[in-house]
Amino acid sequence: MIGKFITFEGPEGAGKTTILELLMKDLQQSGIEAVFTREPGGIHIAEKIREVILNKEHTEMDARTEALLYAAARRQHLVEKVIPAIKNGEIVFCDRFIDSSLAYQGHARGLGIDEVLSINEFAINGFMPDLTFYFSIEPERGLERIASSSEREKNRLDLEGLSFHKKVQEGYEKVINRFQERIVIIDADKPMIEVLDDVKNVLKEHIQM
Amino acid sequence: MIGKFITFEGPEGAGKTTILELLMKDLQQSGIEAVFTREPGGIHIAEKIREVILNKEHTEMDARTEALLYAAARRQHLVEKVIPAIKNGEIVFCDRFIDSSLAYQGHARGLGIDEVLSINEFAINGFMPDLTFYFSIEPERGLERIASSSEREKNRLDLEGLSFHKKVQEGYEKVINRFQERIVIIDADKPMIEVLDDVKNVLKEHIQM
Repeated sequence: MIGKFITFEGPEGAGKTTILELLMKDLQQSGIEAVFTREPGGIHIAEKIREVILNKEHTEMDARTEALLYAAARRQHLVEKVIPAIKNGEIVFCDRFIDSSLAYQGHARGLGIDEVLSINEFAINGFMPDLTFYFSIEPERGLERIASSSEREKNRLDLEGLSFHKKVQEGYEKVINRFQERIVIIDADKPMIEVLDDVKNVLKEHIQM
Repeated sequence: MIGKFITFEGPEGAGKTTILELLMKDLQQSGIEAVFTREPGGIHIAEKIREVILNKEHTEMDARTEALLYAAARRQHLVEKVIPAIKNGEIVFCDRFIDSSLAYQGHARGLGIDEVLSINEFAINGFMPDLTFYFSIEPERGLERIASSSEREKNRLDLEGLSFHKKVQEGYEKVINRFQERIVIIDADKPMIEVLDDVKNVLKEHIQM
């Protein structure tokens, strides 16, 4: 039995992490075996790489160094956690994957989508997601949601200005165009319960639930 | 004024590090401004990346993760140390660079020269060496030299068997074929003083000395 690899993508404040949590509870109640993960996913080497990336003293870090480090952490998380689970027949849901690097570092940071794709293809070695949900929301609305959320700890990207988030959206649009057969667009500017239903309706076409 | 970027390559025991030391003294005596470096070259972020690569507890590290980490460390060493020196008009000599990754990881470890080249092209972003010396020696002779050297601290690669070192040689041969215009082959199976003279004779065609 072969599992499935499903990724969740979108800008900050699109609600994908909340939806993943709701979906996890739903699937557990239905007795469906699924793994919910996000990079670095508790993988020791990937955590060590993240420490190098996120260390606040590393202000001299070059954008290409950072992109290579993300690709390295992605590789290790994939081989240690994602691929073994899928070979075991499980469905793996991953919060952000290759498309985030393409939109954020490739487009918004200006390294080039093709160039960032190239190092990520080396990292994943053909192991692309079977299905990707893109949570679509206007950057203004996403930022509003982040601002109004008291639970969420603000991260480095949350603090970027609107123009950066607009570039991220532009980047995602290019990525969606390129990988149309894999990416399903979900309107994330609806009440959570409706968004969850939309995701589940698409999922039913791909997995038994 | 624009400097030069010159790399030294070759299998273990070819004597390139010794020649670099002799050359450094020679150039200093002649009053020529040159920088002698090797990755990670004392660059803080690159050192941190090396710690992740070389940590003996990281036995689960995947070969692709390792290749991406080397490329990341290379990038940071290049932007922080090599490029500023060259822009300052200096000649930079680097003990091992991109060709080592192609021969060792691309060919000997089996990841593919083209694939390892691709992530390294992302890392160096067009900044290839102006000139590369390849220290040619039969793997048997190189291993003999390592074994008889009491000064040298044995590293992980020194301890690999002859078949691995033969693969490294094969890898370098492919790399030399591909970059003929940049790579000069030096017969390293001669007395050191003659090897040094051969290197200096080639250097004179490229820099004022």
